[in-house]
Amino acid sequence: MIYEPIFLDGTSGVPMYRQLYESIRDRIGGGELAVGEKMPSIRRISEELGVSRTTVEQAYQQLCVEGYLVSRPQSGYYVEAAIIEKKPAPPAEPDDSETLPGVRYDFGSRYVDSRSSDLDLWRKYVRAVLSSEEIVSSYGHHQGEPELRRQLAHYGMLLRGVNSTADRIVIGAGVQPLLSLICGLLGDKVQRVGIESPCFPHAERVFRDFRLDITPLGHDKYGVTPRELYASNVNVVYLNPSNTESMGRPMPVSRRAELLEWAENTDGIIIEDDYNGALRFRSRPVPAMQGIGNGERVIYLGSFSKLLMPSVRISYMALPPELAELYRSRGGSYNQTSSKIEQLALAGYIRDGHIEKRLRRLRKIYSEKSDRLISLLREYFGQPAGIRLAETALCAELTLDCTESARVIASKALESGVRVIPMDSSGNGAKFRLSFAGIPESDMREGVRLLHEAISPYCRSRT
Amino acid sequence: MIYEPIFLDGTSGVPMYRQLYESIRDRIGGGELAVGEKMPSIRRISEELGVSRTTVEQAYQQLCVEGYLVSRPQSGYYVEAAIIEKKPAPPAEPDDSETLPGVRYDFGSRYVDSRSSDLDLWRKYVRAVLSSEEIVSSYGHHQGEPELRRQLAHYGMLLRGVNSTADRIVIGAGVQPLLSLICGLLGDKVQRVGIESPCFPHAERVFRDFRLDITPLGHDKYGVTPRELYASNVNVVYLNPSNTESMGRPMPVSRRAELLEWAENTDGIIIEDDYNGALRFRSRPVPAMQGIGNGERVIYLGSFSKLLMPSVRISYMALPPELAELYRSRGGSYNQTSSKIEQLALAGYIRDGHIEKRLRRLRKIYSEKSDRLISLLREYFGQPAGIRLAETALCAELTLDCTESARVIASKALESGVRVIPMDSSGNGAKFRLSFAGIPESDMREGVRLLHEAISPYCRSRT
Repeated sequence: MIYEPIFLDGTSGVPMYRQLYESIRDRIGGGELAVGEKMPSIRRISEELGVSRTTVEQAYQQLCVEGYLVSRPQSGYYVEAAIIEKKPAPPAEPDDSETLPGVRYDFGSRYVDSRSSDLDLWRKYVRAVLSSEEIVSSYGHHQGEPELRRQLAHYGMLLRGVNSTADRIVIGAGVQPLLSLICGLLGDKVQRVGIESPCFPHAERVFRDFRLDITPLGHDKYGVTPRELYASNVNVVYLNPSNTESMGRPMPVSRRAELLEWAENTDGIIIEDDYNGALRFRSRPVPAMQGIGNGERVIYLGSFSKLLMPSVRISYMALPPELAELYRSRGGSYNQTSSKIEQLALAGYIRDGHIEKRLRRLRKIYSEKSDRLISLLREYFGQPAGIRLAETALCAELTLDCTESARVIASKALESGVRVIPMDSSGNGAKFRLSFAGIPESDMREGVRLLHEAISPYCRSRT
Repeated sequence: MIYEPIFLDGTSGVPMYRQLYESIRDRIGGGELAVGEKMPSIRRISEELGVSRTTVEQAYQQLCVEGYLVSRPQSGYYVEAAIIEKKPAPPAEPDDSETLPGVRYDFGSRYVDSRSSDLDLWRKYVRAVLSSEEIVSSYGHHQGEPELRRQLAHYGMLLRGVNSTADRIVIGAGVQPLLSLICGLLGDKVQRVGIESPCFPHAERVFRDFRLDITPLGHDKYGVTPRELYASNVNVVYLNPSNTESMGRPMPVSRRAELLEWAENTDGIIIEDDYNGALRFRSRPVPAMQGIGNGERVIYLGSFSKLLMPSVRISYMALPPELAELYRSRGGSYNQTSSKIEQLALAGYIRDGHIEKRLRRLRKIYSEKSDRLISLLREYFGQPAGIRLAETALCAELTLDCTESARVIASKALESGVRVIPMDSSGNGAKFRLSFAGIPESDMREGVRLLHEAISPYCRSRT
């Protein structure tokens, strides 16, 4: 019984779940809890220790996230691993959209370049929609405004090779509500879902909330391998073929075709999240998987926040014919989440050809800015540094051999007015992400210079 | 084996799922399938009949919706009842927001009264937000804009007695994404959920999508009874105490207190959907359950689409402290669904006192319009008709003893240019809903006159 020697101190100021998490983690690390062992239920620990179930759930959750425990539906929690080699954390984006005070050079910004932001044009479209009394004073269409769906069917085909009609397109305020819808539509057909590892955390969150059995899939340099998929026994897989986090480049067409073959052979479904699929500036975009196959085994997801403006939350999906039919049969029992005004503004914006112009402009801007940032990093940090472009994430990755963790160094840099995103606090090298989307090009040199100054004292191989 | 004698005809023009649905329904009605009997799995029927699983799922779904079958998670489908007394269908709102062609007098409109729509004022606030480059070109807060959450904490307390702080408020684009979030946060704590019967279909949809075990709860004239709740073995219940569909009036405070006691005694959770809770014009609004209790056992949901404009999809919930803490511990892994621009416009609108003014004005307008409609219905349809005000639904209900179904008569009325919503096609009386929200008061007399003319030929007790 692991909880006998656990004493939680309600007066210590450390949250209870944190104390519990640490106790269990230490016991796993110390071997008192062996790999494979079943953990006591949340209810039991809660009763024995006299803490709320939420407290226990939070502790277990944290242990699952870090890989110490694994949750098996209808069974319980099991010890998964004794020592965890920390994976790179997902980019720790700040909780608030506000700029941090004192930050002069912000490589961590979630803003987009103001030069690129078409703000006046966007306002024009929003105002035009807003001026219609009929539009503002009536409900929108639950599937998404028909006018926007027509534009998206055309746009998806033109720019991403997505093969869909407007009646198979469903709009939503971001990828999460669409994934919820997908889980609802698939129903009993999805029990186990395969994900890339690491996975886009917001997608994983939805699968966890639906209490699906999640199988992380390994990959080679081209992405998830067909062998992994066949061996995994999943029937639904969620992929980001245009933006594979671990590889920093899109999945080649040949691999896409192999994975489509898996879907055909096994009656499987591929959820293709084409995040920023069109926004490539180094190479030509690779066509969407949905269009490479016959569109019957792939649910295609596309988004606009990075392409348009971050404040606009419009995503869409193209459903295979069978699922589209099921969606329609459920009629109006799903509400639309995306703003009607913004949907119609976007429809006009696409209709008038602005999205293509914007893509061309963004490709040019990001190509220049990424070149500039990479060359500045090379100039200041030189050969010993690992410098890599993460194209669709719109940032550069800088890896250095340091005496302190990336987190510590990033907070030092912050004191000098430079913000970067620390990625990794373990083992070999401190890793940082520097976004080039938000920072003006003219500020880059001074920002990199100050960053170098802040990092230098902690560098093993002096640069 | 029920499927042996089933022949589906792919060339008949009747959808396959409909043919299958009818075959099974007939077999249940004819006693070939007995109540309690387990149905073959979707996969098995699909294989035996050579139709897609979606087809079978749609047929089963329809049979479940109508009460012939019941789905038991991890077990399968069972025959629930042989003969179904049709419940009133949820108001069959048209799929499209567009006004139907040829409709001159629209009592089925989902528009709000243009007199009441503050459109210019709303535009002013949206434009003000839109003019800030910083706002438009940055992401919003995942929990909802802090400024709006502060306003909502204040507003909820003032108008509905909701006891919450801004950090326990989560915003979303409608009730569905918030219910999804609730299901995700409750996790294993929710296995069975109790609902009022009939239930708001969009809420039931979410619970079904999460594959929860749904228990419909009976009610007396004050709403769901404590006895039902104690007997039901549910630990989560979804209620609409301000807008009980079946009663057309709010649940009294005494019943609210009894249900709160159930939650306290059983560690239960009440999801209180306060749809239009503030928009009462006949009587004073009853305070929210959330504020009557200590707020620890109630998740409060509030919406704005009827209050503000239908195109604005902003809902919010006030979480109990424990769940709020859990939400925060999951940090940024949930995306906000509601439009940032519209959230900030609403924050300004509330801050400047417009929402209270608007409520006063709406109460006055709807009070006048409902009086007018009820008196016109009495004048034309007289004593034999059942005429009832459904206050928070903003409509009158008209029940007549007819020779045809409400649906048939409604389509006849449509030919005369009058749209009403047919409610019930069974047994004693045809029932219609007439919304007074969208139609101008000056059009009401002619609309009711034409409706009377269209209905008269089908009335048993001539009016």
